[in-house]
Amino acid sequence: MDAQLGFDTLTPISSIHHRLAVWKSLTGKDIPLFVGDVCDYDFLSAAFTEFRPTAAVHFGEQRSAPYSMMDRAKSVFTQNNNVLGTINVLYAIKEFAPACHLVKLGTMGEYGTPNIDIEEGFITITHNGRTDTLPYPKQGGSFYHLSKIHDSANIQFACRAWGIKCTDLNQGVVYGVATEETAADPALINRLDYDGVFGTALNRFVIQAAVGHPLTVYGKGGQTRGFLDIRDTVRCIQLACDNPAGEGEFRVYNQFTEQFSVNDLARLVTEAGARMGLQVVSKSVPNPRTELEEHYYNAKHSKLEALGLQPHLLGEATMEQLLKTAIQFKGRVDMKQILPAVAWKEAGSSTGKVLNKK
Amino acid sequence: MDAQLGFDTLTPISSIHHRLAVWKSLTGKDIPLFVGDVCDYDFLSAAFTEFRPTAAVHFGEQRSAPYSMMDRAKSVFTQNNNVLGTINVLYAIKEFAPACHLVKLGTMGEYGTPNIDIEEGFITITHNGRTDTLPYPKQGGSFYHLSKIHDSANIQFACRAWGIKCTDLNQGVVYGVATEETAADPALINRLDYDGVFGTALNRFVIQAAVGHPLTVYGKGGQTRGFLDIRDTVRCIQLACDNPAGEGEFRVYNQFTEQFSVNDLARLVTEAGARMGLQVVSKSVPNPRTELEEHYYNAKHSKLEALGLQPHLLGEATMEQLLKTAIQFKGRVDMKQILPAVAWKEAGSSTGKVLNKK
Repeated sequence: MDAQLGFDTLTPISSIHHRLAVWKSLTGKDIPLFVGDVCDYDFLSAAFTEFRPTAAVHFGEQRSAPYSMMDRAKSVFTQNNNVLGTINVLYAIKEFAPACHLVKLGTMGEYGTPNIDIEEGFITITHNGRTDTLPYPKQGGSFYHLSKIHDSANIQFACRAWGIKCTDLNQGVVYGVATEETAADPALINRLDYDGVFGTALNRFVIQAAVGHPLTVYGKGGQTRGFLDIRDTVRCIQLACDNPAGEGEFRVYNQFTEQFSVNDLARLVTEAGARMGLQVVSKSVPNPRTELEEHYYNAKHSKLEALGLQPHLLGEATMEQLLKTAIQFKGRVDMKQILPAVAWKEAGSSTGKVLNKK
Repeated sequence: MDAQLGFDTLTPISSIHHRLAVWKSLTGKDIPLFVGDVCDYDFLSAAFTEFRPTAAVHFGEQRSAPYSMMDRAKSVFTQNNNVLGTINVLYAIKEFAPACHLVKLGTMGEYGTPNIDIEEGFITITHNGRTDTLPYPKQGGSFYHLSKIHDSANIQFACRAWGIKCTDLNQGVVYGVATEETAADPALINRLDYDGVFGTALNRFVIQAAVGHPLTVYGKGGQTRGFLDIRDTVRCIQLACDNPAGEGEFRVYNQFTEQFSVNDLARLVTEAGARMGLQVVSKSVPNPRTELEEHYYNAKHSKLEALGLQPHLLGEATMEQLLKTAIQFKGRVDMKQILPAVAWKEAGSSTGKVLNKK
């Protein structure tokens, strides 16, 4: 997709083969590697049969909301890849590793922005004098977010029908690039996407600040979401694996640690920049998405903390570290990639209007 | 699929070309025909461009829950065909007929069997002191039912993001075979499926009664669903088309007229058989599905009646007419097709255990 869109991560990424070799040299540990597509069931069955996993962490999805809204083919690709790929994973577990615990990456975006508190996966509803606990109503804001909603529903059914064990991690927006493990060697560094398709809110803002570009606030900037440090992401996955769901159980965790609005983030980056001698300004750009720009937002996120998550909150030190990383790599920034790239309303059978090429 | 599974409709079906010719000779009316696959966007765009529809009634989906549970490939085929086909329909409307009203066939099975009343598409929830009206929580019982849930969510998003107009018809189980129009000539008769994959509850029971086979009640028979006469199906579609949703509106109707349990239906068929001199018995067979066999069920269905639907309820005359049609065609019954065919728990990468071939 980088090649398709002319994008690149800010950080230089080694091949997966090289990274595993470096990891082996640092730790003595082998990580078996099977490179293939979850949509290719022959590949997936062979990998499950050979590896016999006790836990499968499924991150093999098209991960960008803007990409899913560029044109018809990319909407279809996103739901094909994500939804049908996940059905394959469910069948592979059922057939080849029925005791395997599926840890599935979902997104907080599945919930949308309802005017009531967001619970972790399920809500108890009393209606006309009767009560039931039901899947929390979802309202996806792109074909990507919808693909994750469909996954959750398909997985929940497979748990009920086949006894699959699953933990669905509804993750917020991740910021940061380094974990203790990736910091052990430059070859292990993570991707850091800052473009309008794969980049996410806070990471994009710090890179804009580093290169002296105004922070691009979509619309009014009141859009509020859950966020978490990449170190907490990794810890949450570990906690999920260490505490597997029971047979037939579909468990849902909201995986984020703090809520911020876009305007909150712009302010935090501006203040951190000032402390480091950078003059940061913000500007509102037309919102390319279909979303509320001012809304109620209160999402629960206590279950992972109950399992032992100790959040890295977004304090001054973390914010300055994010800026330092952006400054370190700013020579690699392609200024053309910084603006929003995809307008939700423009998608058609040919690629929609690409906003930054106007 | 008939050829794939060795099934056939009880009623002999003419080619669509012949049926249109007969319709023309009876009424003088031309119905333009475009034969193709909604998953083929070139075909779909050409049809939309040429026909310029003001309403598109989308029935172009894989329609069987058991088929979707036979094996991995058929689960994937079902969601691919239904979900990605519907995304194509949404793009075709957006690009080529933006004022077109989409009338989409959903299913009452999207709701599952919650322990609270089922509303028509949306539910108002008060939670922790705040209130919002949200999509009704869905719980699909097969990859087929899930495909319809995914469609509803995708369509609702397209209405919001692009201003598409849609009416989603959550239809119950249809019984009967003839409408006033199809009764006008033998060549216009509808399909009547009685096998364990494409057949539906009441139609299967009357055919079993006609050939002297015990009525096959799945499990305890307390499973309760909404039902409607095929004449009401057709009328509901007309009412939906005559009262289009507004721009950006996603309207949901529950399209059924009465609730029955499987045991209710067995009793009604037994009583109607007795009036016609048939001795009908029931037997419980192991339930091939994953579903509750005793549960609360109260689903609302007032919106189509408010638009003018006058239901054909399941009285004695209708029940006897169903039995007469079954007796008329009973020489075409293949007894091997009568039993449940697909066990939900047996699906794998090869076709699951086919129950009636044990």
